[in-house]
Amino acid sequence: MKVVIIGGMAAGPKTAARLRRLIPNAEIVIVEQGEYTSFGSCGMPFYLGKLVPRFEDLYATSYGVARDSQYFLSYKNIKVLTGTRAVAIDRVKKRVQVLKLSDQERYDIDYDYLVLTTGAEAVVPPIPGLNLPGVFTMHHPSDAQELQKYLLENNSQNFALIGAGVIGMEVADALSARRLKVTVCEAEQQVLPKLLEPDMARLVAWQMRRQKIDLQLECRVQAVNPGADGRVKSLTTSAGEIMTDAVVVAVGVRPRVDLAREAGLELGVTGAVKVDTHLRTSDPSIFAAGDCAAKYNVISGQEVYIPLASSANKQGRVVADNIAGLNTEFNAVMNTTVLQAFDLNIGKTGLGKHEAEALGYTVITGIVSGNDAPHYYPLHGPVTIELIADRQSGRLLGAQVCGEGEGVKRLDVLGTAMKFGASLKDIANLDLGYAPPFAEAIDVAIHAANMLENKRLDMVRGLSSLEVEQLKNDGTNMTMLDVREPDEVRAKPLLEDGLLVIPAGDLRNRYHEIPRDRLVIVICSAGIRSYDAVCFLKSKGFEEAVYLEGGLSTYLK
Amino acid sequence: MKVVIIGGMAAGPKTAARLRRLIPNAEIVIVEQGEYTSFGSCGMPFYLGKLVPRFEDLYATSYGVARDSQYFLSYKNIKVLTGTRAVAIDRVKKRVQVLKLSDQERYDIDYDYLVLTTGAEAVVPPIPGLNLPGVFTMHHPSDAQELQKYLLENNSQNFALIGAGVIGMEVADALSARRLKVTVCEAEQQVLPKLLEPDMARLVAWQMRRQKIDLQLECRVQAVNPGADGRVKSLTTSAGEIMTDAVVVAVGVRPRVDLAREAGLELGVTGAVKVDTHLRTSDPSIFAAGDCAAKYNVISGQEVYIPLASSANKQGRVVADNIAGLNTEFNAVMNTTVLQAFDLNIGKTGLGKHEAEALGYTVITGIVSGNDAPHYYPLHGPVTIELIADRQSGRLLGAQVCGEGEGVKRLDVLGTAMKFGASLKDIANLDLGYAPPFAEAIDVAIHAANMLENKRLDMVRGLSSLEVEQLKNDGTNMTMLDVREPDEVRAKPLLEDGLLVIPAGDLRNRYHEIPRDRLVIVICSAGIRSYDAVCFLKSKGFEEAVYLEGGLSTYLK
Repeated sequence: MKVVIIGGMAAGPKTAARLRRLIPNAEIVIVEQGEYTSFGSCGMPFYLGKLVPRFEDLYATSYGVARDSQYFLSYKNIKVLTGTRAVAIDRVKKRVQVLKLSDQERYDIDYDYLVLTTGAEAVVPPIPGLNLPGVFTMHHPSDAQELQKYLLENNSQNFALIGAGVIGMEVADALSARRLKVTVCEAEQQVLPKLLEPDMARLVAWQMRRQKIDLQLECRVQAVNPGADGRVKSLTTSAGEIMTDAVVVAVGVRPRVDLAREAGLELGVTGAVKVDTHLRTSDPSIFAAGDCAAKYNVISGQEVYIPLASSANKQGRVVADNIAGLNTEFNAVMNTTVLQAFDLNIGKTGLGKHEAEALGYTVITGIVSGNDAPHYYPLHGPVTIELIADRQSGRLLGAQVCGEGEGVKRLDVLGTAMKFGASLKDIANLDLGYAPPFAEAIDVAIHAANMLENKRLDMVRGLSSLEVEQLKNDGTNMTMLDVREPDEVRAKPLLEDGLLVIPAGDLRNRYHEIPRDRLVIVICSAGIRSYDAVCFLKSKGFEEAVYLEGGLSTYLK
Repeated sequence: MKVVIIGGMAAGPKTAARLRRLIPNAEIVIVEQGEYTSFGSCGMPFYLGKLVPRFEDLYATSYGVARDSQYFLSYKNIKVLTGTRAVAIDRVKKRVQVLKLSDQERYDIDYDYLVLTTGAEAVVPPIPGLNLPGVFTMHHPSDAQELQKYLLENNSQNFALIGAGVIGMEVADALSARRLKVTVCEAEQQVLPKLLEPDMARLVAWQMRRQKIDLQLECRVQAVNPGADGRVKSLTTSAGEIMTDAVVVAVGVRPRVDLAREAGLELGVTGAVKVDTHLRTSDPSIFAAGDCAAKYNVISGQEVYIPLASSANKQGRVVADNIAGLNTEFNAVMNTTVLQAFDLNIGKTGLGKHEAEALGYTVITGIVSGNDAPHYYPLHGPVTIELIADRQSGRLLGAQVCGEGEGVKRLDVLGTAMKFGASLKDIANLDLGYAPPFAEAIDVAIHAANMLENKRLDMVRGLSSLEVEQLKNDGTNMTMLDVREPDEVRAKPLLEDGLLVIPAGDLRNRYHEIPRDRLVIVICSAGIRSYDAVCFLKSKGFEEAVYLEGGLSTYLK
């Protein structure tokens, strides 16, 4: 059997390696137009930030051997043709025409099975000046090296990012940590617009500004302008001119599907190559995997485009299994996306609020703040969680996290439970590992589920900080009731019209001081005491008492 | 409605707090024989290790208010009677007789609902001398304080632990970190005998010895002996005399059920108070929760005794819900138990091998070693995972972790999936958060599931390090084939009879050197290359080729 794989980054080599184990005598060829194979692209921002010291580390095995053509040949008996571009597929004759880039030689390679792992390509927006020296994308292996070199050679001090998506945030963080003055221009109203709800994105934006990032939201870049030396010098934007020594354009990626399209393979609605659960394309002899292949969300069944090395590796394995006749399915996509930037662990799994609403769910959302370990344990960090659930059934539909603490662990638990159709009550009944170094006795993920279930059952009404601010902006007649301890109030005072300060321990004696003719918004540090207080106030006839979900950590910058 | 709660540690206050929110006008009384309420007992080892600087931190809220009687009264309108022991329950008249310890006053308290949260008590083995000054248990809030004081006042240098269970390990770690010379005496053949499979426990034992713990296994303590000053001076054990300045006895806890037993409530097979899924005892007006209440494993349905603050808090909530008529069930127990000691993150969820076999499963187990983040990312740590599955269905039944890396995160994911009946294939299809700070592109938990599924399908044969050693001890005629790189071999050589060293990249040219008349055990650092090599060797007719699961990290001390 002869298997030809087009693309040598993640899904391709994984397909090849698994296939080699399953069919020891198969002939396996990988065609890769670039110079590198099995390159850890996801590590590029960390190479930029000097956390990864050597570029070579990004394509070496854990035992220090470079994963080049020689490695694949001697360790795995896989033939890798680098610097070789697949230019056409003849599906009838089952052959691929390739072009050797060094000498422009063209020749055909026959296949029994063809695997497309052609990956993705950076989207380049129609902005004049993107071809100037000093403007980069962050997608090809050489991109990080070239940017690194440019920054050093030009002694760059100022740096601008176009796009506040995942890669943009990682790059901004890496270069900010290297003391460059970083400006981030994002056309949307919030950072990570494809990932986070606005209230969660705001926490990230606050942190960026605390870390001296110049974050420009709703900022459209109109032109990239050169200086006298011909290199990039400034950006013309809807927020004015921004001086910069280098630019990274990170507005997203799209599947690289020219070859598939020209071969007449079906594409999906996201533009990726359409595949079934066995990752077969519309041609049963051709599989597709990784960033060029369509994926489907487990909850919605809808096609989504979330290019990640984790999915690519899983898919490579599935393709190999099916070529070897093992009948393996891929149904892994929960839209899980995580990143670490600005000392925050950030992520999403499942559906966002609007995605869930678009599917017809009546959605309920809730935010909690907590710690990843008990407050008395010194190594604890804050975690804010937003959950999205179906109001009718209580089924969990989505989760988002943000904070210095270990929120991604909770995201993985919630995503796993969600995949099996878990309700909020199921989450509350999970037996998660408890000891002080790992969690609070009530894990913050369970706390979040309990909180949203209370809300779903209309036991108590909570508002997010954005909802509270909207009420303020609307001029709603209301009392803000701060129930924190005097020390806390002094350390971090709330400055609001109509503010009343009554510590939670005094509330049972002093609730008479609260006006009864208006909305009462109860506020504490994390949303626990204020929730308690609302339960109490309702029993005293304050029907219009609500609390600020997540407390002041989501409200004060 | 009047609700009386006996026990003020975890489940009791949680029941009370939730109930207060659900029924604002209920009369709620907590009877606690000790001095403290809502005390974070799990934090005691960390107080001993000085990670938690002040004893008071262990019973304070996150905003610094001590959770004493005054707190419960003013913040929650809950009456707490400390220093008051419940001595008898009159179930017919629905009243509890209590004894005020300070003045021996006895009186009755009526109830509509009674909640038993009487907790657990330390098991004290029948060893002479346990009443000597310098001998402690680690269960009551005062225990940590008194031990702390004793160590300081006596300038103790040597410390001995009886029992290598969870608490014992945490205490040994804490005191070892304070430079005491620590001896651990464990009667069983391994540390953490109720938690870990022997191969996993061995990894912990190696680490303890690397950290200069004097670990004595299969060591029975026969007597605790005083010195001339009357204080503890030595232990007489099956391993000889051990000199020590202080002793902690940590051989386990059992439910404290005297009151329940005397009231005629049914007890379960573990000795805990029998409850239904709503946590009602055999008397419908009496609930039980926390360490005194029976729990049932979700997979087996069998009663288990795993006293943890996490379950206690969940159960307290469930009791309150049911008293308030909300019809909430508790079905959370996956036997999840975790600890951090000797720089290792250690844990178990689900069933152990023998537990699964006892339920009639044909069990298959597998061990993998990996990292919690990519090797090129500097902040990564090793994780060893052992999975236990049903050979027939591939259903995951249990998981154990050990390593410096973030294994407990994987345990939480695996435990969550397991609760929903996940198979190894389901685990392989999880969409876990991937970015270099959080995981390898193929998360080590997914790697573990893939590995065991391969083994289940008889695609390849792996042996654990203990199995390999057993073959060696049996005098089996075999070749050990080390396929690591020359640098690795030099740094950490294998010293074995019949050793053959052929780097994985040379194997395809040099496999003729391997004897064909005997078992071949292929070995590498983590079990990846050796697995690859076995696949290759089988294709060349080496039917008796197997690989060492988890590689040398599980094999060399």
